Amino acid sequence: MKRKGILIILDGLGDRPVKELEGKTPLEYAKTPNMDKLAKIGILGQQDPIAPGQPAGSDTAHLAIFGYDPYQTYRGRGFFEALGVGLNLDEDDLAFRVNFATIEDRTIIDRRAGRISTEEAHELAKAIQENVKISADFIFVGATGHRAVLVLKGMAKGYRVGENDPHVEGKPPYKFEYEDEESKKVAKILEEFVEKSHKVLKEHPINKKRKEEGKPVANYLLIRGAGTYPNIPMKFTKQWKVKAAAVVATALVKGVARAIGFDVYTPDGATGEYNTDAIAKAKKVVELLNDYDFIFLHFKPTDAAGHDNNPKRKIEMIEMADKMIGYIIKNINLEETIIAITGDHSTPCEVKNHSADPVPLLIAGGGVRTDYTESFGERECMRGGIGRVRGKYIVPMMMDLMGRTEKFGA
Amino acid sequence: MKRKGILIILDGLGDRPVKELEGKTPLEYAKTPNMDKLAKIGILGQQDPIAPGQPAGSDTAHLAIFGYDPYQTYRGRGFFEALGVGLNLDEDDLAFRVNFATIEDRTIIDRRAGRISTEEAHELAKAIQENVKISADFIFVGATGHRAVLVLKGMAKGYRVGENDPHVEGKPPYKFEYEDEESKKVAKILEEFVEKSHKVLKEHPINKKRKEEGKPVANYLLIRGAGTYPNIPMKFTKQWKVKAAAVVATALVKGVARAIGFDVYTPDGATGEYNTDAIAKAKKVVELLNDYDFIFLHFKPTDAAGHDNNPKRKIEMIEMADKMIGYIIKNINLEETIIAITGDHSTPCEVKNHSADPVPLLIAGGGVRTDYTESFGERECMRGGIGRVRGKYIVPMMMDLMGRTEKFGA
Repeated sequence: MKRKGILIILDGLGDRPVKELEGKTPLEYAKTPNMDKLAKIGILGQQDPIAPGQPAGSDTAHLAIFGYDPYQTYRGRGFFEALGVGLNLDEDDLAFRVNFATIEDRTIIDRRAGRISTEEAHELAKAIQENVKISADFIFVGATGHRAVLVLKGMAKGYRVGENDPHVEGKPPYKFEYEDEESKKVAKILEEFVEKSHKVLKEHPINKKRKEEGKPVANYLLIRGAGTYPNIPMKFTKQWKVKAAAVVATALVKGVARAIGFDVYTPDGATGEYNTDAIAKAKKVVELLNDYDFIFLHFKPTDAAGHDNNPKRKIEMIEMADKMIGYIIKNINLEETIIAITGDHSTPCEVKNHSADPVPLLIAGGGVRTDYTESFGERECMRGGIGRVRGKYIVPMMMDLMGRTEKFGA
Repeated sequence: MKRKGILIILDGLGDRPVKELEGKTPLEYAKTPNMDKLAKIGILGQQDPIAPGQPAGSDTAHLAIFGYDPYQTYRGRGFFEALGVGLNLDEDDLAFRVNFATIEDRTIIDRRAGRISTEEAHELAKAIQENVKISADFIFVGATGHRAVLVLKGMAKGYRVGENDPHVEGKPPYKFEYEDEESKKVAKILEEFVEKSHKVLKEHPINKKRKEEGKPVANYLLIRGAGTYPNIPMKFTKQWKVKAAAVVATALVKGVARAIGFDVYTPDGATGEYNTDAIAKAKKVVELLNDYDFIFLHFKPTDAAGHDNNPKRKIEMIEMADKMIGYIIKNINLEETIIAITGDHSTPCEVKNHSADPVPLLIAGGGVRTDYTESFGERECMRGGIGRVRGKYIVPMMMDLMGRTEKFGA
C-alpha cells in the first residue's frame, strides 16, 4: 500500500528542564492534545540530527534530516539564503547573508536596524543595486525584515572569506578576513561594496524619514555566511521518486528545500515569526496533499522563543503548532498518511542557541507500530519505540511506512 | 552558560547477573546513595566503548571515550605505560610493559613475584639499569608493585615483536617471536636483556633476603605489550579548548591521559589497588576544579575485583567509589558542573576479564534532562534516556551540556 507523507519540523523544538515550569520542558508543559493523540496511536523516539554531542545549524540539520551528509554537502549558508529568496544561481556564484544594521561613529548600534520592515528593506536594496558600482557583477535583494542576500557573480573560488559582522552590538564592524589570493580579492570587493552601500543608505529618503521618527536607521550592511553551490549528489525527489512540496516561510530553509528539489510554497500570513499564521500553513498542506506525495512543513517560531530564552513564548508557539497539526489531522485520511513530527535541533531556553540535546521524534499514521508512550515530550520520547536514531533515518523510515522503499537483496 | 565537567571512570564497572547476589549485578546490589541521587536528577544510558560485541582494553577504551578512534590511534600498550611512569619518549622509541616474575627450573612459578613491593622493585630495576649492557640504549624503571617499564631507544621499527610472557604459571617463558628483520633484531636484544637481567636479579641482596623469608624471588622479567608513539591527531585539551587534569594512579591510564594533553595528578594514598584512598582522590578533584575546566577521575579497583571473580569485593569497591562521588558532589556546585560516571568497559566476575557487555552511563548536573530512572545499575541504564551510544559520544555530550561545543552550520 502506498501512502503519502508529511514531515513536520518544529524548528528548535527540543529543550531542557525549565525551573519555572516545575522542571518540565516547554514541550512537556504545553497543552498539545493533537500531538499527544498522535503519540498514543503512533511511536516516539529521539533523533540526533548530525550525531550525539554535535549541535547543528538549521541548514545542516535539515540537510541531514533529508538524508544528505552535511559534511559532504554543505558549502555555507549564503547559497541557501539566496535560493530561499528565489534567486537562480550559477555554479560559480558566491552568496552571502546580509543584515541591514545601524552604525554610528563606526560602532554597530543595532544589528537589525530596529527590525526594519520588509518593504523598506526591499526599497533600500533596490537603491543599492541601482547605484553601487563595484569591480564585480552582483545581485543584492531584500529578504524578510532586516535580512538581505548578496551574490557576487562568478566569485565562488573566493569562498574562504570571513565576515564583517561582530555578532554583538557596541563594536565596530570587522574587517573581512581571507585565507588565500581568491578570498583576498573577494574581501576587497566586499569592503568596497559595504562602503559604497553605506553612502547610498545614509542619504536615502527612507533613512531620513526613520531618523525623523526616532527609529534606528538602516545605514550599514553586515555580511556573513559565504556560501557556494551545495554538493547535492541527487535530488530528494529523484532519489525517492516522489512529488514533493515544502510549506516554509524562512528563507534559509526554503533554500535547502529548493536545493534538493522541493516545490516551495509560502501561504499568505506565514512569516516565520511569532505572528505567523499557522492555520494558513496547515490549510496549504492539506491542499497540496492532493497533488503531492510528500509534504515538508516547517514551523520557525519555536526556535526563536528558545533563542530569546522565553519558555512561556515557546509554550505558546508549541500550542500554536499543535493547533496547526490538529487542523491537518482533522482534514486528511490518517490511515493513508504517515506523519512525522520532530525538530531540526534543540534550542534550549537556557542555552539561547542550538544545542546537541537529542530531538523528540514522533511517527504516526497508517501501519505505524505503537509503543507505551502517552504524550509528546522529551521524557516520553526517551522511552519510545523508535529508540535513539540519527536524523538521516527519519525519511527512510517514513518512506518505508509509505510503501516507497526498495528491498535490497532477494 | 559555561560549565565545568568531571568524567569519572570506574574501571571495569559493568557486570553480569551474579547468582549469589540474587541475580543482581554488583552495581545493582551495592548501596550507592550518591550515584542513585545523581541518577534520579540526571539521565542514564549504556555505552559501548568501541562497538557492541567488541571487548576493549583499558587503554583502547579510554582512548575511545576521549574521542580517539583506537583502531587509528593505538600503537600498543608499552608506550602508555612508559608515559604513565613519567618518561619522556622520542618518536622512534619502543616501549614495553614488564613484570617482575619468579622462575624455577625454567618454569614460571609466579607471574608477579609474590606481588613484590614497589620499593623492592624499584631497587631491582636500578640494579638492572646499572649493570646490564646490551647492544641498544635502554631505560628500565619500576612502576607500582611488580610492574616495570622497558624502553629500547630508537628501536620503534621493530614493534612487530612478540612477548616472553606465557600468561599462565607452570610454563616456561616464551621465546620472543618476530615478523620481520627489524623485529628480529629487537627479539634478539630482548632475549639478551632478559638473560643478563636474570643474572643480576638472582644474585641481588633483595632476592637473597626474600628467599630467606620464604617469599617468591623476583628473578625474571616477563616482557610484553610492545608500543610505539600513538597517533594522536590533536590533543584533547586543544580540540576542546579546555584546561584538563586527570586524577589517576594506574600507570597505563596515566599514560593515556598524558598522551592526550591532561595534567596528571596522583594524590598520596591513591594506589590503584584495593587499598586506595578514594577520598584523597575526591579531595584532589574538588581542589583541581578551581583551576581546571575538565577533570578526569579514574578509579581502578572495581576492575581488579572483576578480574578476581570476587563479587563481594567488587561491591565494596563500588561502595567506596560511591563515597568518593558523595564527597565530590557535596563540595561542588552541581548546577555549574556536568558529572558523567561510567566504566571504561565491563569486567564481569564470571568472565574474570573484560567483556563487551555495554557499560552503565550516568550524566547529571546543570541543564541535564531527566528520565524516569531511579538508581544507577545495569537494568535501570537500559531504560535510561541516553539510550545506547558509543563511548566516543560521551565527551561531546558532556561538552555540549558544558556550553563548549561549536555549532556546525547556521
